[in-house]
Order: sequence, then C-alpha cells, then structure tokens
Amino acid sequence: MKKLISTISGIEYPFDRIEEFAENGESLEVFIPNLNKAKIKSGKYLWERFSDFLPFDKMDESSSLGEGNTPLLKAPKYLQEFTGISNLLLKNETQNPTGSFKDRGSLTCIFMAKELGEKVTATISTGNMGHSISAYGAKAGIKVIVFIPEFVPKEKIIPMAIHGATIIKVIAPDYSEMKKKILELAKELNLRIVSGNGPIRVEGYKLTAFEMFEQMEGKVPDYIAVPTSACGHIRGLFKGYRELKEAGLIKQLPKMIIVQAKNNSPIVSAIKQGKKNIIPFTNFHTIAEAITSGNPMGGDEIIHKAYQYGWLAEDVKEEEILESQSELAKSGFFVEPSAATSLYAVKKLKMSGKINPDEIVILMLTGAGLKDTEMNKYLETNVLESNIHNIFQDVKKFLNRDF
Amino acid sequence: MKKLISTISGIEYPFDRIEEFAENGESLEVFIPNLNKAKIKSGKYLWERFSDFLPFDKMDESSSLGEGNTPLLKAPKYLQEFTGISNLLLKNETQNPTGSFKDRGSLTCIFMAKELGEKVTATISTGNMGHSISAYGAKAGIKVIVFIPEFVPKEKIIPMAIHGATIIKVIAPDYSEMKKKILELAKELNLRIVSGNGPIRVEGYKLTAFEMFEQMEGKVPDYIAVPTSACGHIRGLFKGYRELKEAGLIKQLPKMIIVQAKNNSPIVSAIKQGKKNIIPFTNFHTIAEAITSGNPMGGDEIIHKAYQYGWLAEDVKEEEILESQSELAKSGFFVEPSAATSLYAVKKLKMSGKINPDEIVILMLTGAGLKDTEMNKYLETNVLESNIHNIFQDVKKFLNRDF
Repeated sequence: MKKLISTISGIEYPFDRIEEFAENGESLEVFIPNLNKAKIKSGKYLWERFSDFLPFDKMDESSSLGEGNTPLLKAPKYLQEFTGISNLLLKNETQNPTGSFKDRGSLTCIFMAKELGEKVTATISTGNMGHSISAYGAKAGIKVIVFIPEFVPKEKIIPMAIHGATIIKVIAPDYSEMKKKILELAKELNLRIVSGNGPIRVEGYKLTAFEMFEQMEGKVPDYIAVPTSACGHIRGLFKGYRELKEAGLIKQLPKMIIVQAKNNSPIVSAIKQGKKNIIPFTNFHTIAEAITSGNPMGGDEIIHKAYQYGWLAEDVKEEEILESQSELAKSGFFVEPSAATSLYAVKKLKMSGKINPDEIVILMLTGAGLKDTEMNKYLETNVLESNIHNIFQDVKKFLNRDF
Repeated sequence: MKKLISTISGIEYPFDRIEEFAENGESLEVFIPNLNKAKIKSGKYLWERFSDFLPFDKMDESSSLGEGNTPLLKAPKYLQEFTGISNLLLKNETQNPTGSFKDRGSLTCIFMAKELGEKVTATISTGNMGHSISAYGAKAGIKVIVFIPEFVPKEKIIPMAIHGATIIKVIAPDYSEMKKKILELAKELNLRIVSGNGPIRVEGYKLTAFEMFEQMEGKVPDYIAVPTSACGHIRGLFKGYRELKEAGLIKQLPKMIIVQAKNNSPIVSAIKQGKKNIIPFTNFHTIAEAITSGNPMGGDEIIHKAYQYGWLAEDVKEEEILESQSELAKSGFFVEPSAATSLYAVKKLKMSGKINPDEIVILMLTGAGLKDTEMNKYLETNVLESNIHNIFQDVKKFLNRDF
C-alpha cells in the first residue's frame, strides 16, 4: 500500500497526507514497495521507464512541459583547472522549461494533484518554485496560488503572473511568521501547500538521479554537489540512487556534497560543529537568493544522512559565489548565484584534501542566470562605446589591447 | 569538395568564404555531396548521427553546451481550440542553453571557427544572437566580439558581457548604416562576422529538422510555422527536410509558414502582393524585438521558395502578438513576443481555410520569455496584496471570487 514514512524515525503516514512534515517535525518520504523487483522499462519518458520506482497511478504527458533530458557535460578544461578536479561534470538543470530544477518536482506535484482530483494547488515562494508550479498548473489546467513575501522584486513576480497564477503578496513582520500563518490558512481551506521539501516533489528530483544513471550508462559518480536550502533536491537525488541500489542496479552510492552560502548555512554550520540539529540563521543577506531557507525543517534529516553516509558539507562566501558565477559564465554557463555555489565548494574541498583530483564530481547547475536581476557590474567591463565615425580606429585600438 | 552555392542562381563559392552572401546579394548555402548515399549513424549527439549530412571535418563535444534535445509536445487542448488545429505541436527551442534556437547555429559556427583555426568570431546583434555566440565562444575558448546598436537595453547586454564577450556599442544614425560600416571594418580586419542568415548557422538549424524527424519517428508535419527575420532559421529547417528527402528517408516535404509582425513584414507583404523581392520596412516599431530585420538580405530566397514549394505567409498585429504570448503562457509556455507570433498566424490561416483542422502543424517556440523585459502589465492583474492580519478574510474573499 502507498504510504509516507518519516525519514529519521520511520513513522508511517497516509500517502495523501496534506502536511508535508511529520508531527515531530521530520521530513517525510514516499515508501516504494518491492524495489527488489523493480525493473527499468522501455518508454519515451523518464517516468515511464522508471514507473516501478514511482508511486503515482496516473501519469501522462498532458502534465509535462518537457522537463528533464538536460545535458550532463564534461566541464571544460578551464573549470577542471579552477577546481582541481579532472572528472568534473555539469548537470545543467537550467535547461528545464522554466529554467530551474524545480520543474521536475512540479511535474510530480501535478501527477499527485490529478490523482487526488485537486483543482487548486498552492505554494509559498520567492521565485523559482512559484514560477515553476505556475507554469505546470497552467499546462495541466490546475489553478495555482502563490504566496509571496513583500520583498520579491517584480521581475520574479512576472513569470508567475503571466502563467495566470493568483499571487498573494503578504505583508508580514517576518518570513517564518508569514509561513506559519499561511499554513494555518491552508489547513482551514483544505488547500495543499507544496514546498521545496515535500515528499511528492522529492519523487520528481529522484528522476534526475535516474536520468544521470542512464546518461552515465550505469556508472555512479563519487560526489554530487548540491546547493541546499529547503533540502528537497539533495534528498531526492540521493533517494534515487538509494532506490537504484535496492533494485540491484548499482552497487555503490554517491556521496552528496551539501553546499550553502556562508551567510546562511544552517546545515553546513551544524555539520562542521558536529551538531545533530540545524543552527537557524536570521537577518542574513546573501546574493544566493534561491537558497535562503534560514531555518529549513528538512535540515535535520540531511544532517542525519551526512553522518550516516559520510557526505561532505561546505559553505561559500559572497565573493566566492560571485567569482564562481563569473568563472562558470566564462566557460559558457550562465547560472544564478545560488547555482554557482557548488563550483567554489568543490574547489575548497579539493584543496583541503577531502576530494581526490581524479574522483568523479557532478555539479548540479540548479537555476538559470536570466533569473538573476542584479548583474550591472558586468556592464562596467567588456563594453566599448564608439561613434560610427571613429569606429575603425576605436575598434582597432580595442582589439590590439585585447588580443 | 566542400563548397557554398548561391540559393537562387546556383553560383559556386569556396566553403571558407567570409562574406555570407553572394556578390549578387543572394543567400548562400552549403552544398552537401552524395546525399543519396547519406545514412543515419548511431551516436549520442545529433551531429554524430547525422554527420553524413554535415560539412565539418572536426566536430566534438568540447564545442557543445548541450543544445538541442528540446521537447516536441502536443499542444494542450486550450491551444488546439484557440487555433482550431487539433494536431498542433510545439517545438520548444527556449530550452536551449541560452534560451533560444540560436544555440544550434552557434554550435556550427564554433565547429567552423575551429576548423579554420579562427581565434576570434564576431556578430552584430540586438539580443539572442549575441547572447548565444558569447556563450559558445566562452565554452570553446574563442574570443567573441558583439557589435550592438545604441538602443539595446542593459538586460540584453548583461548575458553577453558575463560570458566575457567584447561588446562594442556603436552610435550610428541607423541600423543598416551601422551594419554596412561594420562589414567594411570586418573585411579590413579579416574578421568573420556571423549573421542570422549565414550558411554555416543554417547547418545548425538544419539539425532541428533532423531532431524532429527522429521525434516523430520519420513522420513529416504538414506545416512548420517560423517567426522570420534574417531568414536563417526557416531555411535551415527546410534544408534539413530537403536533404532527408534527397537521402530517401522521407517522401514528402513539409510546407513552411513564414510569420512576421505586421509592423515589419518585408517578406510576408511581398508574398501577399505577389512580388518577387522583399518590401523594405524602416522606422517601424514592434514588440517582437527578436524579429526586426526590416530589410533582410535573405528575404528574396524565402519569397522564391514560398512560390516554388507552396509555402504560406502570414502577418500578425501587435495586439495579436500580445494575445498569443498570453495564451501560450496560460498553457504553460512563457516565450518572448516574437516566438508567440506563430500561434496567431496559424489561427488566422486556419480561419481563412488555408490550413485544414486536422493537418499536423508545428509551432517553433524560438525564444524564452525571461529574455523579454517589458511585461509589467501582468502585475496589474492576478496580484492581491494582503496584510498578514487580514489574510484569512482577504484570501477567502479572493478565492470565492476566483473559483
């Protein structure tokens, strides 16, 4: 029978539970039965081929926007040298329909909404999540409500609004108080609020692991570096590999690398200090806007797993994030600051000897650079302004200097 | 032997010719020999499988950013009803690495640059093209110079600048004068200026046809609607199908639908008036910023082919473009205005009886909506602002109204 289980204590809950956490605050995950008999089938879509690993009865392409099938590329030499890792791979999740990995989880949220006959779905978001679920709701004909805090800039609201989502901007003293109130409201309205760490979204992120398994022809990387906030992505990726192992398709699990901005590192700080619970961050600022959960409820599970499986954890300073974004762009990959964090984290882990130079490391490029709205500094270099009358001499001078 | 031929008169030119047009102004295309013996091979990449159809000696994944492999989706019911076409398909080129179809042509430009040992490549662009070639140059270690007119907004310059391209903003009385001067300069510097209609880029767009051929398992659509400006995309797609036919892999060619903004329709106007040459447009304004060639040199070839092969042509008014962008977004697809034009064009062609309701029509979604910077109107609807103290009553009122 389909069910959810809490990820540390293993308490069971019904599959259609609306609350995304257990009463004791633990993350929940979907229990997949009979994994020892699970087989990879043939089929056009990832979710067809791996249907033995998924809990949904109804899956069809009307819910899909063509997510996934994103490139897994060998990093150019420039980035191999920057990190000191020669087997560096980039999984470019920015090529998903709305430009971030969130689309994988939105697909499974829509599968779930359809299975339960829900006509409305809701989320609390400052950007990527709201954009993604708005697009998927539009495709599937499910009404989407996005609750946003006051400070979200209009560039981030437009992509939600254009898909026809109802956007509710909430004026509240702080973000966690806002969240609490909205969850109360949702309970009263019997409205499912999907969050970045919900067990159903995790099933979507799990598919990324299956896709990489196919792309690497069954080979397993040594490490996967994941910018981590609400924790859904990192645990989804790992759950995918765990289930492949249970199905006897792989022998060894990859180790995850938890990456956070130093200015907001509730999980990484806890691990570095040997603690079992997250250290909440408040009143911080980081340019990595897409990873700003300062008090992630899913964090304790990640800490627990980090010790259990020997994962790594690293934080990255603001200037290191900016440098990483620039280095990735200079190699052809324009990602938002949060997505750039793992590049520098891996460089540091290599320098401190925790990763060997020939180990296989995948960086998850989680979100597109076009989503980032604060990049004026790039206009201060690289740009020459020339009047057409002087262009021959201007350009020649510029080229001589440059080449 | 490798060569270029002019597309109307068939005059031959050397393959490595730097100028992208023949002396008489005709577009050039790459001549592929022995197509009757061309075979599809096995291989991970499209350009490996279709190497018999490509003119490059050196192709390897170091030039690639993972372009292509974009979804070809059945349009949701909502869009089928909007257009009146039940077999409507969407080819979502916005999921390319830099968010537009241009990446396919940038790949082949980089193949070419490497083959010729060029260290620098240049383009004249107002947006997508500059972004794409900047990213591909960065990946391949080839220096990119982008000449831009004065009016390009900073949001469009940033994606070029972050990839490390050299951007030269040219102050000139008008765009065509600017172009002329830059081509002179390029000749003097022996610099290859790649444009949207260059024969090498066309080889990249051709690969999209091959990809759709694979995705449709050998089936050929009746129509492919393409927003058309410099003309490289539409002729590349058609060249792909022509070559598949020459190789005996398909029996029938699709018909192309040339789509332009009514405010700038040098090709569509000419066809509607039965003329053989483009009707140049100047001093126009259209929200479809990515298709603003008012005087495209490649236009005459397209007009020629339209008559020869029975293509269709349609223009779209500004308010129709905006409506199309909104309709696509309400179905989950957030594209820039230029990419939305074909939706309305197809609706009109169906209404006028030129397309039958059960014919297979593909819309090329050419560029991503996040590239569009003028969308404030979507903030005026859909958004509720609520103080946390009143949120229960505010939201309930809003929901009652909405559902």
